Amino acid sequence: MNLLLFAGSEREGTDRVRIRGRRVRHLREVFGAAPGHALPVGEIGGRLGRGTLLSLDGAEALLKVTLERDPPPRLPLVLVLALPRPKMLRRLLRAVAEFGVSELILVNSERVEKSFWQSELLSDQALHDYLLAGAEQARDTRLPAVALRRRFRPFAEDELPALCRGRRALVAHPGAAKPCPASPAGPLLIAIGPEAGFNDFEIGLLQAAGCTPVSLGTRTLRAETALVAALGRLGAPAE
Amino acid sequence: MNLLLFAGSEREGTDRVRIRGRRVRHLREVFGAAPGHALPVGEIGGRLGRGTLLSLDGAEALLKVTLERDPPPRLPLVLVLALPRPKMLRRLLRAVAEFGVSELILVNSERVEKSFWQSELLSDQALHDYLLAGAEQARDTRLPAVALRRRFRPFAEDELPALCRGRRALVAHPGAAKPCPASPAGPLLIAIGPEAGFNDFEIGLLQAAGCTPVSLGTRTLRAETALVAALGRLGAPAE
Repeated sequence: MNLLLFAGSEREGTDRVRIRGRRVRHLREVFGAAPGHALPVGEIGGRLGRGTLLSLDGAEALLKVTLERDPPPRLPLVLVLALPRPKMLRRLLRAVAEFGVSELILVNSERVEKSFWQSELLSDQALHDYLLAGAEQARDTRLPAVALRRRFRPFAEDELPALCRGRRALVAHPGAAKPCPASPAGPLLIAIGPEAGFNDFEIGLLQAAGCTPVSLGTRTLRAETALVAALGRLGAPAE
Repeated sequence: MNLLLFAGSEREGTDRVRIRGRRVRHLREVFGAAPGHALPVGEIGGRLGRGTLLSLDGAEALLKVTLERDPPPRLPLVLVLALPRPKMLRRLLRAVAEFGVSELILVNSERVEKSFWQSELLSDQALHDYLLAGAEQARDTRLPAVALRRRFRPFAEDELPALCRGRRALVAHPGAAKPCPASPAGPLLIAIGPEAGFNDFEIGLLQAAGCTPVSLGTRTLRAETALVAALGRLGAPAE
């Protein structure tokens, strides 16, 4: 926990915050914190600053906070991701928040197993918790907006064209002739398929909506590796 | 398993291969394979081709193989990685093999927990198995060479300068002014620190050996995310 994040609803007055649960355990067990302990804090969706621990009992902690800095800029990227298996999704949610992706759209695809859509991870609370872990890691207060689209075709035909307008829109596709750009300027969109890739029909719809197929190399990477590799290429600063 | 890999010691004559264990279970349970089933095969360290299943009993399978293609090129990269926690190491070994990294050197650092060096994952067999999973994924027959260096300073002072010569040598360092290059040509070396980063003394030794600090952006990424992001920048083809 590089940053202790709290919700606006946890404020008490102008500069007091009362927290519970996992963060209190972390303060005690990992930091061995006692009253007077200072640490970086942030308000979810808001600003960053310093907190000082005023009291810590079994279940809760009271902090005095001073917020004086804006959070880091977002990565202006819409990520369209075929729903991965739950175990992988957990890690990917963290990574997506670490990079500060502005919007994540989890979509269906022929090669997504139907059972993945039953995962408890797709509850608002679980999505929030995993994204929060990534934001804590990267010292950010803002979480990617997440949308679920259980039907690929209506999404690709009715929503995606508008999302692609004004953005450089890409689809990661192993067979593509064009390589994935590095650190392009301006708003982006990238679609990344399931383990076995989008099928030809889906690639056709993505292209019709405005996405250009790009390659991350000739190797067949796991979806998880491909996603983080793509974020590393697109998201890190230009040379 | 995008590729069935076998060892030279599993050959029987010029074109027969007898395999056991996990691969046999995978053939039966995932592929539902019966005699006549054809699939991509490769010899570890050797060539790629096609295999045809001749027989399959409880514990073993016999295949006829024809190898006619060279494996994909290596990524000419020496990766110097502070030993990560075992759970993370498993995934990183896979990713390193997926990218075809030529050499992996796991090193100590002040901020590496001592207990990580006791992990069973560091046995030759375990390293081999996880690298193999990455090679199967990426349809490669060659595995990264792995070396362990339990003392940082002798490694950095006595071995690293020679490794850096003739290579573009980098160290990922959050504070660096220079961004990490994308798809640079020629042989590379990159050093990546533990979760909390190399300490100043270690960064000094890495620089003295010839490594230039480069940044993957202002965000504090987990070591795992940083490694895959760096491989995505360095390893994918140039625009």
